Amino acid sequence: MATLSRIGLAGLAVMGQNLALNIAEKGFPISVYNRSSSKVDETVARAKQEGNLPLYGFHDPESFILSIQKPRVIIMLVKAGSPVDDTIKTLSVYLEQGDCIIDGGNEWYENTERREKAAAELGLLYLGMGVSGGEEGARNGPSLMPGGSFEAYKHIEDILLKVAAQIEDSGPCVTYIGKGGSGNFVKMVHNGIEYGDMQLISEAYDVLKSVGKLSNEELHQVFSEWNKGELLSFLVEITADIFSIKDDKAEGHLVDKVLDKTGMKGTGKWTVQQAAELSIAAPTIASSLDSRFLSGLKEERVLAAKLFDEVIITDDQVFVDKKQLIDDVRQALYASKICSYAQGMNLIRSKSEEKNWGLKLGELARIWKGGCIIRAIFLDRIKKAYDRNSDLANLLVDPEFASEIVERQAAWRRVVCLAINAGISTPGMATSLAYFDTYRRESLPANLVQAQRDYFGAHTYERTDMPGSFHTEWFKLAKQANM
Amino acid sequence: MATLSRIGLAGLAVMGQNLALNIAEKGFPISVYNRSSSKVDETVARAKQEGNLPLYGFHDPESFILSIQKPRVIIMLVKAGSPVDDTIKTLSVYLEQGDCIIDGGNEWYENTERREKAAAELGLLYLGMGVSGGEEGARNGPSLMPGGSFEAYKHIEDILLKVAAQIEDSGPCVTYIGKGGSGNFVKMVHNGIEYGDMQLISEAYDVLKSVGKLSNEELHQVFSEWNKGELLSFLVEITADIFSIKDDKAEGHLVDKVLDKTGMKGTGKWTVQQAAELSIAAPTIASSLDSRFLSGLKEERVLAAKLFDEVIITDDQVFVDKKQLIDDVRQALYASKICSYAQGMNLIRSKSEEKNWGLKLGELARIWKGGCIIRAIFLDRIKKAYDRNSDLANLLVDPEFASEIVERQAAWRRVVCLAINAGISTPGMATSLAYFDTYRRESLPANLVQAQRDYFGAHTYERTDMPGSFHTEWFKLAKQANM
Repeated sequence: MATLSRIGLAGLAVMGQNLALNIAEKGFPISVYNRSSSKVDETVARAKQEGNLPLYGFHDPESFILSIQKPRVIIMLVKAGSPVDDTIKTLSVYLEQGDCIIDGGNEWYENTERREKAAAELGLLYLGMGVSGGEEGARNGPSLMPGGSFEAYKHIEDILLKVAAQIEDSGPCVTYIGKGGSGNFVKMVHNGIEYGDMQLISEAYDVLKSVGKLSNEELHQVFSEWNKGELLSFLVEITADIFSIKDDKAEGHLVDKVLDKTGMKGTGKWTVQQAAELSIAAPTIASSLDSRFLSGLKEERVLAAKLFDEVIITDDQVFVDKKQLIDDVRQALYASKICSYAQGMNLIRSKSEEKNWGLKLGELARIWKGGCIIRAIFLDRIKKAYDRNSDLANLLVDPEFASEIVERQAAWRRVVCLAINAGISTPGMATSLAYFDTYRRESLPANLVQAQRDYFGAHTYERTDMPGSFHTEWFKLAKQANM
Repeated sequence: MATLSRIGLAGLAVMGQNLALNIAEKGFPISVYNRSSSKVDETVARAKQEGNLPLYGFHDPESFILSIQKPRVIIMLVKAGSPVDDTIKTLSVYLEQGDCIIDGGNEWYENTERREKAAAELGLLYLGMGVSGGEEGARNGPSLMPGGSFEAYKHIEDILLKVAAQIEDSGPCVTYIGKGGSGNFVKMVHNGIEYGDMQLISEAYDVLKSVGKLSNEELHQVFSEWNKGELLSFLVEITADIFSIKDDKAEGHLVDKVLDKTGMKGTGKWTVQQAAELSIAAPTIASSLDSRFLSGLKEERVLAAKLFDEVIITDDQVFVDKKQLIDDVRQALYASKICSYAQGMNLIRSKSEEKNWGLKLGELARIWKGGCIIRAIFLDRIKKAYDRNSDLANLLVDPEFASEIVERQAAWRRVVCLAINAGISTPGMATSLAYFDTYRRESLPANLVQAQRDYFGAHTYERTDMPGSFHTEWFKLAKQANM
């Protein structure tokens, strides 16, 4: 090659390959490198195949780095944790002052902050960039969440704006998120919300299948229909697709042969742990994580089912009006989704305040409108809610969402109770409803909890009718009162 | 003083004072020390008042340490975190090889493990000892959870056996928990379970008050009655007490004047974070933490209540048979409690396996039977369940608990649905029921979630009908199927 590449990418597993090809396709010459060189050759071959794209493969780190124009920008797409540290170590030997390293993996935000500092000591700039959209998104337009050095962001803004998914009326799905590990943090919460969406959809499926007795064909129809309305989204679309696929190894539909055990990779767990850390209630997201944990206990569940199936009497043979049920479940799913996003958004805001990141929630909703796994028409409503009021305490009290919930709440209560009486668990929908009913209550029974705490631990309490902090000798008074 | 003290205690806030007096009362001469000396004088004065107990106060760390017989044992009761490190630093100057330090606070277990190592380098022994029972328990008999150096434990076993709560037929509420930070970890989960119990009781109160329209007098009667049966426990007892107490500053009952905002101190949060870390579903405990978070948003709730109160139509005026409701709520509370303890116990077992602590769950249930905040007749049932089968996968499948749940499940479903239709949230009971209904189901809708993961992320799936790991080109097949 005669001229230098505009950018480099290291780590050529599927996501890395696809993102590199996307960048090349947008007209930015790119150098690629991978520790095992077969991946390099594979990527080069794909670049040829997919339109003779300006992508150049290198088998050693030095020539890879030297092939890139200064200030160099290198995107890493390797496994989070120590592989990232190893890659930085390998590459930084050849990097020079002012060069930039970008981690595109699902990294824990504090690791990014540690690395940004270490990089700065070497005169290097650093970004932690969440990339969402799976393989397909990486190739054709992901949602990008870059956080860290603003100077580094500016070096590649032109590339990111073209590589990201493009949404009519709202632009490319990328923005500079903020300082430090904010890009990783936002991506983490995005994934937590994704867990919540998947859980809620699976509960809708469960109720329709187990109580409504819908066939896979009917489920395909229902989800296809839902994907034309308020629930229009990537996850509902692929759910509709899934129900249409026949098993190629046996009779019936493939979805019925998939084992009911769900894997996970850590971002959902982190989201739940951070919510606890920041005192943000995120029960819908937590319920999705718990459901994955319980799904993994297949052998225990089989034994428990044997023990209980004959003795637990539920109304699962109850007659239901299918049409009404489908409509109710759609509404329950939508209302629960509002709660889940409210939790995720409030978690991001809380962290932003703690870290002084200054994140703009409406702008995050905007860049999630396309490219990423949670992309949905729904995100436009969220963006608009924050446009109306950037200080919105909770999505639930945005006037539009509030009235949508009011319209749907009766259906929501019907679905959860129907499921309870049928012995079908809907932890995500039930816990979302409890979140709503808790948040909208002026007086909770927390007065009793605080009285208990003061009784046994002298933790004091406040009063409803006067300011100050009070302690009562409950035990002594009770003994007198009950003598 | 002519002879040396048997033991020393540093940190004379209420818990420290009371534990020191308890030790002295059991016949073990004790030296006490505090950084601010007024607390020393206060404790010495109390020792005189409360029966001329053998307790000796010191105002400087050196004479405090030198007043104790070797090998010296010092219990610290100071705030968790850096105050513990400071105290160790102050005291260890005067300690000698073979002396023991015991941290009696609610410390994060990893801090104890770090300190045990550091102490070992100085030739000192170290224990992290959970102490439960509040002020009253510390004075008259707490539940003690010492973990760390077994040699250190042996040095004070005779003291702990006498100081701990004594339970007929099952001995003193103390046992050597295990190595490392196991004592702190077990105490942490104990507190998480305590959060769960308090939440469930507050929900019972809420349903009885808000739906059943019970007065405080009736609530006092109900909880007093419950405290004679399967729910007999410290927390139900103090709840009954609380409803009997009149406000001394205004008309009515004090409980109605207590602000519905609940404080917390960290152990509940840690429990939830550890559950996520160890892939253990603990939704009942998590719901109690979330409820505390939401209770803190009083101002937001007041605004949300204004927004929704007139438009959310619920059945809160529905006629209920009070007697039936009370009986149903009792059963729902008991069944939910089983789920909460199942989660806590499984969390402890999981950590024990990870750390190779060899913890005995039945023995933990035994030492929680008295002294501590969660003490209850119920813990005897748990102990017996693990006596029957120490490898029990989940308390839910113990034959006795299983049949108790079967008897109560109809009432449990009635209560949760009644609350939902009345717009009263019962997150703890609802999520417990979802936990039960999830755990006892052979087939969950997790097949759909895993199919989605394979669709967008090529995460692969297992099949129900053959071994192996599979990946399907869902997108491609769906386009073909739906052409």
